[in-house]
Amino acid sequence: MGMATDLATLNACDRGSFLAALGGIFENAPWVAEAAFAMRPFAMVADLHAAMMQAMANVGETERLALMRGHPELASKVASAGAMTAESRREQGSLGLDRLSEGELARFDRLNAAYRARFGFPFIVCVRRHTRDSLLDNFERRLANSPESERAMALQEIGHIARLRLVEAVEGPGKPKTDGRLSTHVLDTVSGKPAGGVRVVLIELGASATGLLTEAVTNADGRTDEPLLAGAPLRIGTYQIAFHIGAYFAAQGIATASPPFLDVVPVRFAIAEPEGHYHVPLLASPWSYATYRGS
Amino acid sequence: MGMATDLATLNACDRGSFLAALGGIFENAPWVAEAAFAMRPFAMVADLHAAMMQAMANVGETERLALMRGHPELASKVASAGAMTAESRREQGSLGLDRLSEGELARFDRLNAAYRARFGFPFIVCVRRHTRDSLLDNFERRLANSPESERAMALQEIGHIARLRLVEAVEGPGKPKTDGRLSTHVLDTVSGKPAGGVRVVLIELGASATGLLTEAVTNADGRTDEPLLAGAPLRIGTYQIAFHIGAYFAAQGIATASPPFLDVVPVRFAIAEPEGHYHVPLLASPWSYATYRGS
Amino acid sequence: MGMATDLATLNACDRGSFLAALGGIFENAPWVAEAAFAMRPFAMVADLHAAMMQAMANVGETERLALMRGHPELASKVASAGAMTAESRREQGSLGLDRLSEGELARFDRLNAAYRARFGFPFIVCVRRHTRDSLLDNFERRLANSPESERAMALQEIGHIARLRLVEAVEGPGKPKTDGRLSTHVLDTVSGKPAGGVRVVLIELGASATGLLTEAVTNADGRTDEPLLAGAPLRIGTYQIAFHIGAYFAAQGIATASPPFLDVVPVRFAIAEPEGHYHVPLLASPWSYATYRGS
Amino acid sequence: MGMATDLATLNACDRGSFLAALGGIFENAPWVAEAAFAMRPFAMVADLHAAMMQAMANVGETERLALMRGHPELASKVASAGAMTAESRREQGSLGLDRLSEGELARFDRLNAAYRARFGFPFIVCVRRHTRDSLLDNFERRLANSPESERAMALQEIGHIARLRLVEAVEGPGKPKTDGRLSTHVLDTVSGKPAGGVRVVLIELGASATGLLTEAVTNADGRTDEPLLAGAPLRIGTYQIAFHIGAYFAAQGIATASPPFLDVVPVRFAIAEPEGHYHVPLLASPWSYATYRGS
Repeated sequence: MGMATDLATLNACDRGSFLAALGGIFENAPWVAEAAFAMRPFAMVADLHAAMMQAMANVGETERLALMRGHPELASKVASAGAMTAESRREQGSLGLDRLSEGELARFDRLNAAYRARFGFPFIVCVRRHTRDSLLDNFERRLANSPESERAMALQEIGHIARLRLVEAVEGPGKPKTDGRLSTHVLDTVSGKPAGGVRVVLIELGASATGLLTEAVTNADGRTDEPLLAGAPLRIGTYQIAFHIGAYFAAQGIATASPPFLDVVPVRFAIAEPEGHYHVPLLASPWSYATYRGS
Repeated sequence: MGMATDLATLNACDRGSFLAALGGIFENAPWVAEAAFAMRPFAMVADLHAAMMQAMANVGETERLALMRGHPELASKVASAGAMTAESRREQGSLGLDRLSEGELARFDRLNAAYRARFGFPFIVCVRRHTRDSLLDNFERRLANSPESERAMALQEIGHIARLRLVEAVEGPGKPKTDGRLSTHVLDTVSGKPAGGVRVVLIELGASATGLLTEAVTNADGRTDEPLLAGAPLRIGTYQIAFHIGAYFAAQGIATASPPFLDVVPVRFAIAEPEGHYHVPLLASPWSYATYRGS
Repeated sequence: MGMATDLATLNACDRGSFLAALGGIFENAPWVAEAAFAMRPFAMVADLHAAMMQAMANVGETERLALMRGHPELASKVASAGAMTAESRREQGSLGLDRLSEGELARFDRLNAAYRARFGFPFIVCVRRHTRDSLLDNFERRLANSPESERAMALQEIGHIARLRLVEAVEGPGKPKTDGRLSTHVLDTVSGKPAGGVRVVLIELGASATGLLTEAVTNADGRTDEPLLAGAPLRIGTYQIAFHIGAYFAAQGIATASPPFLDVVPVRFAIAEPEGHYHVPLLASPWSYATYRGS
Repeated sequence: MGMATDLATLNACDRGSFLAALGGIFENAPWVAEAAFAMRPFAMVADLHAAMMQAMANVGETERLALMRGHPELASKVASAGAMTAESRREQGSLGLDRLSEGELARFDRLNAAYRARFGFPFIVCVRRHTRDSLLDNFERRLANSPESERAMALQEIGHIARLRLVEAVEGPGKPKTDGRLSTHVLDTVSGKPAGGVRVVLIELGASATGLLTEAVTNADGRTDEPLLAGAPLRIGTYQIAFHIGAYFAAQGIATASPPFLDVVPVRFAIAEPEGHYHVPLLASPWSYATYRGS
């Protein structure tokens, strides 16, 4: 994707420039951008997104179905062969869907075939809002949907995809929220103070693999200098933060057992809202701790 | 080891029977039992143990060192070849020390050699109070001790070994405490009631491997019908209890996220006192939990 | 009330003795005991209670209403003058209803009059299951009930009263549960041990007054030697336990602020189930605490 | 006190203007300001305060003692009669020290006399950093100090007083911190969300009286729009926040007991650092809660 265009520019430019900038927001469906062109001007980026979604709602079922059919299959061999847009390729690549084993490819092919047979269009999902486990889980659960609710689901996912593409393609006021945030802080309940110097390790847990996402050390305020995750949608999935409080309390010179009752404290949780803020603190003594979804 | 003998019988029997029953309590050192024979009668089994420890303290350094030298090396090839007493073989076998790989054997051989070179007697440890990880950790840390404090440590371990053998060999009042206990309970803070039907899985964590120890489901009182561990010393080491509270709250019909923020809650802790009671409860809602060493 | 009679004796005695023992269980309605006489024998005391409740259900609405009308008014001047049975007098006296001020008496008189005008029988409540505040609250809320549901409520209260009288009047197996229990324990999360030596003070909170109920010091297990309340129904109402943890942590030599952040920790809660077990523990460090209804 | 003067102005003005602005910062001791005049310019307000403290340290013990003796007695009849500076009168008035009963006045007179007899100068304390209870407690404890440590204590308090006066008298960069902050937030652990709409009432607890300080309702983020206390030193003393969570959970439609187990949750704590930030949150379900000094 190229440089972002200003919303003001888009509000004033000719049809050709408008389409050049936004024709790819909806996969293989430049007509959505064309419809939005007629609805200018837009005060906020979110209004532009809403206008495009409205355009998609305004057309007949046949056109909408054609739009859905224009989406690539997930991880399919066909996809590997090149029919995907650059945007789709990049989005799918972020989960390693272009580097699947033969067995995994076969599983996706089976799911793709079953889905298409049941619904008549490819499985559409906003890949950037999922871990690989969550995506497969989503795929299998949606196969059981009724055709009607699955068409609504596909439209909702198309909206997620378009929103993410739009905030990258357009600069301007009122961008819709697309990023989430995961943060933490550690409180030492023995001293009643933030626990600084605590090593914090975030991993993604999954059926396929366990992957290190980030690692940090808490500062004097008991927080990490940067959120553990930020600047993008949080991927729906299961995570674990390991809080290395044994080393922290040892460094404080607090008497405890040998080995210490608590050393590395794992906190395992799932993220369900990609655009949400997840604050997962730890209140700890050498013998007890509490955690919760905070704010 | 054969049948246990009554303390009353031991208080009244002749020297030969006494030695037949207790000659093996101290490894290759029947003279300890002989000394205890002269100190009869014993009101409690713990008194008999104390008398034997006193006998070991009463002799000169040379005799005590000879007693230490009479212990087998841990996991050594010599040991495999047969010089161990049946008791030692059984105790070491419980950690799989008789089924080590070539690499592990080599590591033990190096540690055994370094220890013997430094202290002049084999490394003595009450194996039944340790996991394999804790045992290796203990081995390496004790190599750094001064000879004096290490001789004291070895005597203490001999006392642990003897106490465990004694409570199996002798029936009677006042048995010294040799077993620990690990228990749990789960409280549902949404309903203010014990959480029944929660699956609870206990594993041992270790560098070598992760092993399932036990699995249970909480009863109506939020507890497991039996303690998670009991009836033997708790092995010093690191453990993890997985509390399956996601399934529990789903069964209660409590609205939560999809996937639920908390599903399987791991609580990781170390046991440092083999004869202690560790109560590790969980107070949980779908969005928060607390745990602690309770009583 | 005199000595308790054995259930076995009651199962075998003649009608006169049976009525002498149980004629007063239902206020001014010996016919309930007479009906129960015909249903002998009873394996358990609870069966006897159930039989009496059944007898009350079996008669027509007119007889049941007459039974309700046979109950004294709460705290009324008429009652003061002497028409109450000895049992009612004792039960009402436990809340100090026989020592009300003129203003309080006037309030009860107003409520009694309004209730009788609306429902045609006096307000019946098992006084021993209430604090004075809860009783007044109950009185006012029940005035808003429909006549039908209020008649059901009155019967339920008559059942509570009878059950309490019965377990005092009859000895034998299978007594229905009439007593509740309030207990506590204190855990020191700095040391991971029960907090012994903590002063614990229980008061009843109420609009009328604040009254000390009991005071204790935790033992080595962090519990009080006796439950804070036991041996009788818990009175529905609001309570507060004050945990003196500031003095405890000072005695432990744990560094904290001056004055300490936490000194006397009040835990305020309501009891709603007179026959329930309320366990109200405190998990505390000098800077944090948690409490919950435990089990 | 009049308008604040700019630090830049003070750095450039003549001696007369400087003394007019700052001569009253140290009670009845304009020579401290004079000494500071010679040390200009000051980059920060805190530097000006440090220079004045240094000036006080530079003089001999006799001059320093004279400065201490220039302070008024607390709440004395003499003070009432008018020898105090306007600043002292205002500061003491904030605790109601000018409206004491005869009995309280007599107590202060006794303490003042005992203190002066022991140390030879009046009791000096920065009144604005104390509740009345804390002030009396401080007074009685300091009577037991050695003369040497009490002189040091008096100087420290003079520094606190001067710092508070200085930040009001001077505008400019680098003001020393003189204000503290008390904040809270409420988290609903049933829904994993901030609890909005919770009534929160802060009172000061004291031997003399219990006073309402502020009352607020939490916003959608579970916090109060303004801190509970801010913009001034926090007074050392004991406080209680009452969290009305019973009404909150009832409004959420969460099933609970009747009356609810938790209704008004009191959290009692002491403030020891007037310039500190005290964050006192509540994590609550209808059956459990936790609180702690947070950050």
